[in-house]
Amino acid sequence: MRYSPFCDRISGEGVAAWDIHQRAVHDQRAGRDVIILSIGDPDFDTPAGITDTAIASLKRGDTHYSDILGYPNLRAAIAAHHKRLSGQDVTAANVSAVAGCQPGLFAASMCLLAPGDEVVVLEPMYLTYEATIRASGATLKRVSQRPENNFHLDPADLEKAITPKTKALFFATPSNPTGAMMSAEVAKAVADIAIRHDLWVVADEVYAGLTFGKKHVSIAGLPGMGERTVTVSSLSKSHAMTGWRIGWMVGPEELIHHVHNLGLCNQYGMPPFIQHAATYALTHDVPEVEAMRQAYQRRRDTAIARLNQVPGLSCHVPEAGMFMMLDVRKTGLSAYDFAWGLYNETGVSVLDASPFGPSADGHVRVSFVIDEKSLDEACSRIARYTNTLKSVKA
Amino acid sequence: MRYSPFCDRISGEGVAAWDIHQRAVHDQRAGRDVIILSIGDPDFDTPAGITDTAIASLKRGDTHYSDILGYPNLRAAIAAHHKRLSGQDVTAANVSAVAGCQPGLFAASMCLLAPGDEVVVLEPMYLTYEATIRASGATLKRVSQRPENNFHLDPADLEKAITPKTKALFFATPSNPTGAMMSAEVAKAVADIAIRHDLWVVADEVYAGLTFGKKHVSIAGLPGMGERTVTVSSLSKSHAMTGWRIGWMVGPEELIHHVHNLGLCNQYGMPPFIQHAATYALTHDVPEVEAMRQAYQRRRDTAIARLNQVPGLSCHVPEAGMFMMLDVRKTGLSAYDFAWGLYNETGVSVLDASPFGPSADGHVRVSFVIDEKSLDEACSRIARYTNTLKSVKA
Repeated sequence: MRYSPFCDRISGEGVAAWDIHQRAVHDQRAGRDVIILSIGDPDFDTPAGITDTAIASLKRGDTHYSDILGYPNLRAAIAAHHKRLSGQDVTAANVSAVAGCQPGLFAASMCLLAPGDEVVVLEPMYLTYEATIRASGATLKRVSQRPENNFHLDPADLEKAITPKTKALFFATPSNPTGAMMSAEVAKAVADIAIRHDLWVVADEVYAGLTFGKKHVSIAGLPGMGERTVTVSSLSKSHAMTGWRIGWMVGPEELIHHVHNLGLCNQYGMPPFIQHAATYALTHDVPEVEAMRQAYQRRRDTAIARLNQVPGLSCHVPEAGMFMMLDVRKTGLSAYDFAWGLYNETGVSVLDASPFGPSADGHVRVSFVIDEKSLDEACSRIARYTNTLKSVKA
Repeated sequence: MRYSPFCDRISGEGVAAWDIHQRAVHDQRAGRDVIILSIGDPDFDTPAGITDTAIASLKRGDTHYSDILGYPNLRAAIAAHHKRLSGQDVTAANVSAVAGCQPGLFAASMCLLAPGDEVVVLEPMYLTYEATIRASGATLKRVSQRPENNFHLDPADLEKAITPKTKALFFATPSNPTGAMMSAEVAKAVADIAIRHDLWVVADEVYAGLTFGKKHVSIAGLPGMGERTVTVSSLSKSHAMTGWRIGWMVGPEELIHHVHNLGLCNQYGMPPFIQHAATYALTHDVPEVEAMRQAYQRRRDTAIARLNQVPGLSCHVPEAGMFMMLDVRKTGLSAYDFAWGLYNETGVSVLDASPFGPSADGHVRVSFVIDEKSLDEACSRIARYTNTLKSVKA
């Protein structure tokens, strides 16, 4: 039987990159001594106030169809949250709740892009971007954020990548995998380019709640950008709600109209009890959120202190998030061989970062989503493994 | 700003058909005396055993990422359920859990269809089919299931609609909106046509658990059909779980591979606590399920007995589901004018069925998802309104 060309568009390198993670999950379920540093899933459970809200909602019988775009009070809470973060003056009419940041990226791709369009993406970029953008039929043009610039963008590189076919720019700030944040100055330069070339901008801000000191800049809040920016985000990372599948898109009202139509033929709304939990999260003080942020920052500092001492390894300091890029080029191994060697020898799973983009070549992505004792043990195993490599250069 | 042509494909007549329902929901929230017979959302809450399973799961902290295709035990439970219903010999490898029947239809459309393909759909058909199929770029060719045949297919009509461009056949049995079920004889004829013309078949069986005596036939279970059939279904209707957004696709393993890739760039898995609740529903005796089925059957009988007495109205007897097609042609009004007139005069919302397809012209869809007292009151209002129409023909 023949499948659609769409199936080719959504397959690719990004998919195979998860192999090591899936292997580690499989082995852990089988009882093997495995430490998983290969996913961005918080080790914390969702804060109790949020979970309790969902439980109360379930007990009330909130198990029926809901509004396709989300309940009005959730959309209003998202609008208020986005306005606080970005300074962009939006209302509920600019908001759709969606089942996580990823479905928001998918909806943006499908509603904005078409075959023949080029999309500029800033790499290293999150693994699903390639398939998500190609799903629409558009092609990707990658712009490097180089390790020697600590994975930050040089706007001149962006300008050079624009062609008459360029329709949109996709990026994440803070970045996954690098934890680099776009500065106000760079954001302004990017906005100028987007306005000059009449581009859509899709800004993935899912890590905006997990910054380690530097102020987050939402490009949607800059002058002239509201009409051309789609901001996607979720509670997954900041509120330890990855499994809940709840996030949002903020953009022009016309976009929300199209997202509603897509919602009718795809997701058909989000569970009421999940929406109520999300509304609680956005409208209440949840002290665990700041405590989790501090924990990630502590773990980052621990991992850097430990791993920078290992000959052959060098850490890029992330400005946000739950990941660190670890430069393994001096080990003499490719990041792929390093990651699989490490896993096979020690049971520590990290991701070969090269599928995140060519600028990530020679790096592995290490996540901080385990308790500090396990992280310390993982660092010891990484050091032990690296020390066995005869090829390490001083 | 320019949007993608995809946005045009997912808009259309089917979307506008919900206007009356959204108006009724809005008015009900504002406190108006409204009786909603315009949606297929059970009035029953989800059975307690299922909800309790979700609550226990939330309390355990099952709030993290899960497997993209669903947990192995859920997929195995779905496979066993499908095998019991269809006779098709499938395993978990043939199954993806998806966030409801609608996302399953969307995934099938995107993975199987492409621009230039024709898809034969049996109408009257569910309102989202048009946008769901057009999302892929394919075009629809409608085959009538005529009211004079009680909305059943004549396979000769199907045969006539096939062209060299035909790639797939989409239908629902039991049907929404008509409640008609495909007989074993017709299913065999449809299977012969699909095999002879090498077509995919997408069978929507979401109402298969709500039949009123006639045996459900899954076309996937017929010889030669497993390799070319995608069965989509969910717990929404049979288990009163519409808001949970959990369903499944059953098909060839290669399809499931593609659905996995689509899951990575779209839904990214379903909440663990929802999956555990669904697994409970599929592996335990839930006595409320049969009680609800009987309630729908009783309400159907009540509505038919009441409305067939009203001059100008005539009921088609549904064989399954929670809807009835009410023929209003003898009132002299279009179904659109009847539905809006009824709503404006009495606050009872029914759907003009003509957007479900030309065979439904002159009919409104009446749902049975309110308690019997309210249904009785709704029937009284429908009778009162119809009796005010001077144009009714004897």
